[in-house]
Amino acid sequence: MEDGSGNGRPPATAAAWNFEPNGALLGLTALSVRGVLGRVKAGMAAGGGGDGGGGGGRAVIPMGHGDPSVFPCFRTTVDAVDAVAAALRSGEHNSYSSCVGLEPARRSIARYLSRDLPYELSADDVYLTSGCAQAIEIICSVLARPGANILCPRPGYLFHEARAVFNGMEVRYFDLLPESGWEVDLDGVQELADKNTVAMVIINPGNPCGNVYTSEHLAKVAETAKKLGIFVIADEVYAHLTFGQNKFVPMGVFGSVAPVLTLGSISKRWVVPGWRLGWIVTSDPNGVFQRTKVVESIQSYLDISADPATFIQGAIPQLIENTKEEFFEKTVDVLRQTADICWEKLKGISCITCPSKPEGSMFVMVKLDLSCLQGIKDDMDFCCQLAKEELVILLPGCAVGYKNWLRITFAIEPSSLEDGIDRLKSFCSRHSKPKVHRSLET
Amino acid sequence: MEDGSGNGRPPATAAAWNFEPNGALLGLTALSVRGVLGRVKAGMAAGGGGDGGGGGGRAVIPMGHGDPSVFPCFRTTVDAVDAVAAALRSGEHNSYSSCVGLEPARRSIARYLSRDLPYELSADDVYLTSGCAQAIEIICSVLARPGANILCPRPGYLFHEARAVFNGMEVRYFDLLPESGWEVDLDGVQELADKNTVAMVIINPGNPCGNVYTSEHLAKVAETAKKLGIFVIADEVYAHLTFGQNKFVPMGVFGSVAPVLTLGSISKRWVVPGWRLGWIVTSDPNGVFQRTKVVESIQSYLDISADPATFIQGAIPQLIENTKEEFFEKTVDVLRQTADICWEKLKGISCITCPSKPEGSMFVMVKLDLSCLQGIKDDMDFCCQLAKEELVILLPGCAVGYKNWLRITFAIEPSSLEDGIDRLKSFCSRHSKPKVHRSLET
Repeated sequence: MEDGSGNGRPPATAAAWNFEPNGALLGLTALSVRGVLGRVKAGMAAGGGGDGGGGGGRAVIPMGHGDPSVFPCFRTTVDAVDAVAAALRSGEHNSYSSCVGLEPARRSIARYLSRDLPYELSADDVYLTSGCAQAIEIICSVLARPGANILCPRPGYLFHEARAVFNGMEVRYFDLLPESGWEVDLDGVQELADKNTVAMVIINPGNPCGNVYTSEHLAKVAETAKKLGIFVIADEVYAHLTFGQNKFVPMGVFGSVAPVLTLGSISKRWVVPGWRLGWIVTSDPNGVFQRTKVVESIQSYLDISADPATFIQGAIPQLIENTKEEFFEKTVDVLRQTADICWEKLKGISCITCPSKPEGSMFVMVKLDLSCLQGIKDDMDFCCQLAKEELVILLPGCAVGYKNWLRITFAIEPSSLEDGIDRLKSFCSRHSKPKVHRSLET
Repeated sequence: MEDGSGNGRPPATAAAWNFEPNGALLGLTALSVRGVLGRVKAGMAAGGGGDGGGGGGRAVIPMGHGDPSVFPCFRTTVDAVDAVAAALRSGEHNSYSSCVGLEPARRSIARYLSRDLPYELSADDVYLTSGCAQAIEIICSVLARPGANILCPRPGYLFHEARAVFNGMEVRYFDLLPESGWEVDLDGVQELADKNTVAMVIINPGNPCGNVYTSEHLAKVAETAKKLGIFVIADEVYAHLTFGQNKFVPMGVFGSVAPVLTLGSISKRWVVPGWRLGWIVTSDPNGVFQRTKVVESIQSYLDISADPATFIQGAIPQLIENTKEEFFEKTVDVLRQTADICWEKLKGISCITCPSKPEGSMFVMVKLDLSCLQGIKDDMDFCCQLAKEELVILLPGCAVGYKNWLRITFAIEPSSLEDGIDRLKSFCSRHSKPKVHRSLET
């Protein structure tokens, strides 16, 4: 019936339908970790891990994604589950929430974050979002105006770029410096900025670098932002997941120097990314965001946006109050252990170099030396072949704007991590230049 | 420290910060039901319901919002709560979901919707969204390209316009005809459409009109869309909430005539709008959405969008299987009863006329005769004064694009509904023109 033959109407072929896809949109998948990991895993299914080292029967080792919630050693606390179950059972949270989020949840998040700040946040500083992803969507939607640009770190989390570009904003990249613990190249930031620059993004603890910024460095970031008249978007979704020398310091500590939009969520510290509860916080004791109508713009956008599930919002006060320090400590202990394993074992792989030991988040960036490998085009090719032959999933650097590097997630079971890096090592020796290669074959 | 005095940097006054709000964004609140209801309720707090009829001590009667979940007679089924609690307790759904949603949930929604279709939907036809609000956001983001326009019903649900406008799309309105049961003015649709028209929106069962379209009318809608080469966006969030002569017929029944994007959710039929679980379904047996890359565009956008909570997705198969017919029947019985109460009692209010008895959804549109009222400017003014004096909340027609009409939600406790309409009646007589007014005062 589709060709509408004989009814005098135009045939309903593709040509007859007015829709044209938005080209910009179709390109964005390239910028999403989900999209890139999808392509990395694609070959696996096809190859079944058969060739090369062969994956026959072996388990896939997922070191590409920042989601350890499936591993027993990262299982969330029963206190969090009980809080959500109680809110669900109460029947009091089945309705739509207000567009900014339920007041008790916002108040308890304000109290929770204020512990680490020199001033008190109020519930009105907090906007609940459907995870940090929606927080970024909201901020990009609010900032976007013709000609505006935003400064993002390289390597970085390309989701910021995907949303900025979709909303017609220009993204300019400043470098993170591997030789100085991935600190921000602040001179570079000043060169990039112009009168249309509205904000700079920092991600601390670092994704993908696993770095943790000192208070001194954050102070310099704030001074630079102030000098440029831009504000700081601080993606702190990995807040408190630190296990090295530097403790986590929120960017909001410097909110009186330059206004800060702090992004956070329960996804990582409570290890429940699937619960989709995040927040945007105006860390701005001087009320700059009020005067510049940023607050009003956020509220307007929230008015036409989806909200996190109401009963999960309703559970937040109990979830925060009832979670015991021991749970957080246990998570950090496991991360410290797996970061150590990762750091030590990577030393034994010749074609991979790791500039600095990770001290936070769940990731480390390592440099790939293609010159000592054969039959491998680039980082994407490396990850695809590794997935196919060893069933080990890594994220190619291209997905974080850093060609021919790799992002390794060490937030998995320690035993699987050791296995995964051993497989990575045998893959590298198997594919390294002739000399090594021959000796393996005899 | 905000003025940066003495440090040589520009003072951090509003002027010194680069941010400028997006004007379009600030205007959008006017288009949101939440925004308008907020303004209607604002006076209430201030006035405390003191003057006129006075609200002292009386309960507020919320007849403005389509969310009956707070009322005991509309309480969701324990089967649904148990399904979500089990998925939460299992610990198997704490991770990120895939961007299109969990496969078992999509499969069970496909099966659920296929019951009413002449063809079988597959899981690949279903995309999970954070409620219908995000479904609309996604579709508007996908359709938006320079010059594109979309046809929407008047009266209608302005959220469609808010998202379309935000994404730079033009919205053109066709009329719904009150004298013929709010059917679509199809001649008007054909006059509005041009080569840049991509789709037309229908809402069935109707929000705000409470109408339910016959199969014959939907067939004509499909033929019109086919003739114009546009597809149909069918907002069916009130699916199966019908209690009159016309049973609910999904637009997808005519998907082989013109491709249909069906929007739905568990929000209304399961009375859990706060759970934020909705869907977009491609009701398109001829695969037009594949060929025109609509499907690819939706997937790309989902790749950079927030998802509904994973454990709620995980609960969907059990939620759908375990919910008993009795629950649905009970909800519809209460709606039939409250629709009757509404229809009968409104007849007794002189300055309000109701063109047709509601047969579906939770709403009815009534016409306000300002000529027989005094001291009331328009529908917004009417609702604000009513809220202030009688603590009864109605939605002014301006919020659904229909000036000087009112949208009344009858989905509340029957006793509250009777009380609410009695208060509405006494408000109207108190504010009606002198003759009536004097007789009341003696």
